[in-house]
Amino acid sequence: MPSITLLGEAQLRELVPLDLAAIDQIEAAFLSLATEPVAMPPILRLDLPEHAGEVDVKTAWLPRFDSFAIKVSPGFFNNPSLGLPSLNGLMLVLSARTGMTEAVLLDNGYLTAVRTAAAGAVAARWLARKDARRVALIGAGEQARLQLQALRPVRDIDHVTVWARDAARARSFAECVKGVPCEVSANVHDALAQADIAITTTPSRTPLIRTEDLHPGLHITAMGSDAEHKNELAPGVLATAKYICDRLQQTRVLGELHHALDAGVVKEGESFAELGQVIAGTHRGRTDDADITVCDLTGTGAQDTAIAVLALQRARVLNAGTIFHNDVTL
Amino acid sequence: MPSITLLGEAQLRELVPLDLAAIDQIEAAFLSLATEPVAMPPILRLDLPEHAGEVDVKTAWLPRFDSFAIKVSPGFFNNPSLGLPSLNGLMLVLSARTGMTEAVLLDNGYLTAVRTAAAGAVAARWLARKDARRVALIGAGEQARLQLQALRPVRDIDHVTVWARDAARARSFAECVKGVPCEVSANVHDALAQADIAITTTPSRTPLIRTEDLHPGLHITAMGSDAEHKNELAPGVLATAKYICDRLQQTRVLGELHHALDAGVVKEGESFAELGQVIAGTHRGRTDDADITVCDLTGTGAQDTAIAVLALQRARVLNAGTIFHNDVTL
Repeated sequence: MPSITLLGEAQLRELVPLDLAAIDQIEAAFLSLATEPVAMPPILRLDLPEHAGEVDVKTAWLPRFDSFAIKVSPGFFNNPSLGLPSLNGLMLVLSARTGMTEAVLLDNGYLTAVRTAAAGAVAARWLARKDARRVALIGAGEQARLQLQALRPVRDIDHVTVWARDAARARSFAECVKGVPCEVSANVHDALAQADIAITTTPSRTPLIRTEDLHPGLHITAMGSDAEHKNELAPGVLATAKYICDRLQQTRVLGELHHALDAGVVKEGESFAELGQVIAGTHRGRTDDADITVCDLTGTGAQDTAIAVLALQRARVLNAGTIFHNDVTL
Repeated sequence: MPSITLLGEAQLRELVPLDLAAIDQIEAAFLSLATEPVAMPPILRLDLPEHAGEVDVKTAWLPRFDSFAIKVSPGFFNNPSLGLPSLNGLMLVLSARTGMTEAVLLDNGYLTAVRTAAAGAVAARWLARKDARRVALIGAGEQARLQLQALRPVRDIDHVTVWARDAARARSFAECVKGVPCEVSANVHDALAQADIAITTTPSRTPLIRTEDLHPGLHITAMGSDAEHKNELAPGVLATAKYICDRLQQTRVLGELHHALDAGVVKEGESFAELGQVIAGTHRGRTDDADITVCDLTGTGAQDTAIAVLALQRARVLNAGTIFHNDVTL
């Protein structure tokens, strides 16, 4: 009789903290993307304009895992007026051998937040200077907090600057940062001036980082743009820096690359390395301390599968979760 | 605290029998497709060739329902050798207003079987002669059985012929039919000779019904083809009959129409009615008892949403299912 493991958000927060193990798991997903015949179809998107709603469905099969995830990510932008979060969602985990449902991870988007922050840490691990200590956060929301948390196990961060469109939000963000000094910057240029690593985490539709904000040695992780209309880096930034991304197929359409292509700053046929290829050693990332690197992250189904597999493995070891027995009458 | 209703296959079989109410619910879905701004994105498909597996994800939002379904349909064709069914799957039901998960319907494909058979009944209700009594089943599997069951509330069926590639299977199918005589036919032509309604339910890759098998007054429901390579009707059949389908956008790519287009028998720009337009009265179906009609069904996310909504409505009325409380720690 098939049995299915159900895990709620609270359990998943305990099972999968944002730590080095989560970062390593996401790194494995990037390596798979570059070196194995991963199956990752284009994102399914359903729009419900009448309710200011949208739903994305992502999935990927990675040969290294016995299971794969199908992630459902709704965004309903009238929810705050109803006292509900805009973003929620869940992941289904299916057996890669039989297609049978193994688990339903009712994470309300928590695992997505973890895998997204972990990807930022992987990008910094492979692309930032080894001696990077100062980080600039552009945006002061939940992902900014998680990106900083994920960065600390991979680089010895001793100073943070933060800028946000809403200065009050940046101030309250800075007050909540523990264990490292955090300063609010008056503008993006000031925030980046001393930074070794900059992380953009906004839903901006107009570029925030311009060419004149760059300096030798800087690494930028741009993780805010995951839709056609979003854009955090001026096109010239991509012409100046070494450009690396999570998945070219996606960043050509959804990421920062998309806007640089539109602006004609990058040529249509030009080829770039993916993060997994840098990890695999088949392509080069940073080759000099003075290089300026950009990592364009749009989020992949491969990351979702990797984090879901980790959650289910841990739940099984600890006998966590509710087991639902799906009795079948024939 | 968000709570989610879990329903297993056994409960769903009790809650949603294949009856007139299910047929009416599916008819409402077709009417929506023709008359309302339904959102129904293309199917997401993941292939896992290493395990002879594939997964389809379908979804649709229909303005008339407060919820919508996301259906996950895996097909893993090595499963029978492991003692498992090839097809299984589940549906998620989300609120159309907030995107919150309302239910997980662990139906193992049962609801898909019901909504597919119900669509056949809707097609016959609107396109077969009112006095249709004799039905020919091409294929002798589970869907043939369900299509016959669904047909009986909408037409007064008094005779069945069945043909299948595997004659032994057709014989054992005929023995199991209750309440109406069922004869095994030696070939497709004989099966159709006296039929008012023919229903094709096979995964055939080569046409089974040819032009010379047609006769005035016949209605054909072709529901087997739901993928590019499947084909049950010779292209000439579409040139001879009045062609109606569930969704032109899909049948141009996946259905019988696709093969008639490839053969050049139907012109690329030619327009046809969808079943919902016939129901809405904006397009004509059968206008004469001597007409030959074909209804090409590929299966739509709209049907999935309609049947899932029915299941959840009934579960709520009866307090059926297991409630999972998704506690959130913040």
